Amino acid sequence: MATLTVPHQAPDAAEDAEQLRKAFSGWGTNEALIISILPHRNAAQRKLIREVYSSTYGEDLLKDLDDELSSDFQRAVLLWTLTPGERDAVLAHEATKKWTSSNQVIMELACTRSSAQLLDAKAAYHDRFKKSIEEDVAHRTTGDFRKLLFSLIACHRYDGGDAVNMTLAKQEAKILHEKFEGKQFADDEVVRILSTRSKSQVNAALNEYKAQFGHEIGKALESDDGGEDKFLWLLRSTIKCLTRPEEYFVEVIHGAIAKTGTDEGALTRVVATRAEVDLKVIKEEYQRRHSVPLAKAIAKDTGGDYENMLLALLGEQDE
Amino acid sequence: MATLTVPHQAPDAAEDAEQLRKAFSGWGTNEALIISILPHRNAAQRKLIREVYSSTYGEDLLKDLDDELSSDFQRAVLLWTLTPGERDAVLAHEATKKWTSSNQVIMELACTRSSAQLLDAKAAYHDRFKKSIEEDVAHRTTGDFRKLLFSLIACHRYDGGDAVNMTLAKQEAKILHEKFEGKQFADDEVVRILSTRSKSQVNAALNEYKAQFGHEIGKALESDDGGEDKFLWLLRSTIKCLTRPEEYFVEVIHGAIAKTGTDEGALTRVVATRAEVDLKVIKEEYQRRHSVPLAKAIAKDTGGDYENMLLALLGEQDE
Repeated sequence: MATLTVPHQAPDAAEDAEQLRKAFSGWGTNEALIISILPHRNAAQRKLIREVYSSTYGEDLLKDLDDELSSDFQRAVLLWTLTPGERDAVLAHEATKKWTSSNQVIMELACTRSSAQLLDAKAAYHDRFKKSIEEDVAHRTTGDFRKLLFSLIACHRYDGGDAVNMTLAKQEAKILHEKFEGKQFADDEVVRILSTRSKSQVNAALNEYKAQFGHEIGKALESDDGGEDKFLWLLRSTIKCLTRPEEYFVEVIHGAIAKTGTDEGALTRVVATRAEVDLKVIKEEYQRRHSVPLAKAIAKDTGGDYENMLLALLGEQDE
Repeated sequence: MATLTVPHQAPDAAEDAEQLRKAFSGWGTNEALIISILPHRNAAQRKLIREVYSSTYGEDLLKDLDDELSSDFQRAVLLWTLTPGERDAVLAHEATKKWTSSNQVIMELACTRSSAQLLDAKAAYHDRFKKSIEEDVAHRTTGDFRKLLFSLIACHRYDGGDAVNMTLAKQEAKILHEKFEGKQFADDEVVRILSTRSKSQVNAALNEYKAQFGHEIGKALESDDGGEDKFLWLLRSTIKCLTRPEEYFVEVIHGAIAKTGTDEGALTRVVATRAEVDLKVIKEEYQRRHSVPLAKAIAKDTGGDYENMLLALLGEQDE
């Protein structure tokens, strides 16, 4: 379900490192050469290229990319070149620094990664920033947002299987209904259920909710004032990320390109983090929902090397 | 700082497995033989013995120990034979099942283990119980206790070094003082500081607290009614576990043996979990504080195979 296209016989890491070095040398930078390599290598290959580059040239490939490139293209290449754990750590760090609009990113990381992937991000955060994601999230948030985001990011969810406890699912569907009826959206029990139960268990509770109360849970989370309540929005997004992440990502991408002025930060984040995971499903869902191919929509809103980099990650360049 | 005594040339795992099998065979069980082996093998050796036992006899060593032994001796041998991560998972599971007196155990696990050790416990909990420690803790607790215990057990603390941020330490010492002065012991900020900061950072804040306000922080956490407030007790214990775990463990052991009737559950837990870690320091602290050797105090309150097992773990048997 990834969109990443890796050649059947990829050059070895030494050759890739040499080509990249060449792309940086002389006057100007050969962006096309970079785009012909990095977005066509998987995480293990990119890691190896970085290692070989460092041992051969005594320089950090990421530092050289940082020096040579600029703007949105730079951020896309840098984020992509990191390992998934490092990338998530960097995204989380950005998010805790420029609060509050980006608390969405913390929720997204917490709810769309597996427990093992989230753990990789936490370990990379320790290594890189000498502190924990949890302490930065808790420090930079307050009230209901802190309660929900801290629980989501801290909890090491069980994800070892699809078995669910149906008695529990029925009970917790009732609890959610009771709390939402009473407009107690940030109640401890709501946060507990959404942040600690396995994704299978959350899904079972939400299906029970629909069966018992006759409507999707999202309906109970619409604000009376037309969608402006930020906490309700975060709660709806949490549920979407836990149950139908591809729909959530389609919304984020559409939000990033549909409005006047593109939100390159969000666009790059989704493409770079999902290309090796489920971007294929996201593409299909985008086309189904907006009746236009995702690549076309992105091409319309972006340009130059940045556009080429995103399209390469979308698996479009070579088709 | 461990008390565990392992022979210089320990028999190989096959020989140990064979001897243990012999201890179970015929009429009765040879407890002395078991005590001559298991409490004198380190975690890696015990793991290997279990593997060899299983492949040689087609049985689970833990199951055979469970069948052959009984009572406090059984629990001590079983807990000890587990890997540290499995043992902590079992202790956490016991604790979430028989609430509420044992919420102390969750705090103890969260605050006296390293982040890597706590992670081992979480992984073992997933494997063994098909759910997360976090969801059971959150499900079985409410109110202030849930807030503190969930944060403590969920957070993957940074523990990669002793570097501290002194500006932050000063700020957070002030916050703690302000909240405690106002008797807001379960305030979000108190929980945030104690549960998310690295242990070095918590220690720095507490030292700052003492320097700025002229008394140990524990003094601000004494209840007016003479120590009966359970939340305050948990908060004081949390601080002790984060800063001077050996003093905390001395108190637990002393509490377990000093009163009428021994609390074997607590005594076994501390001896089995600390023998390979810091039981030597705990022994010294016990002697200093109570002017009697820990082994003597334990021997006075226990008997038979159980006593022999504990003394072996205390490193006393062979001296």
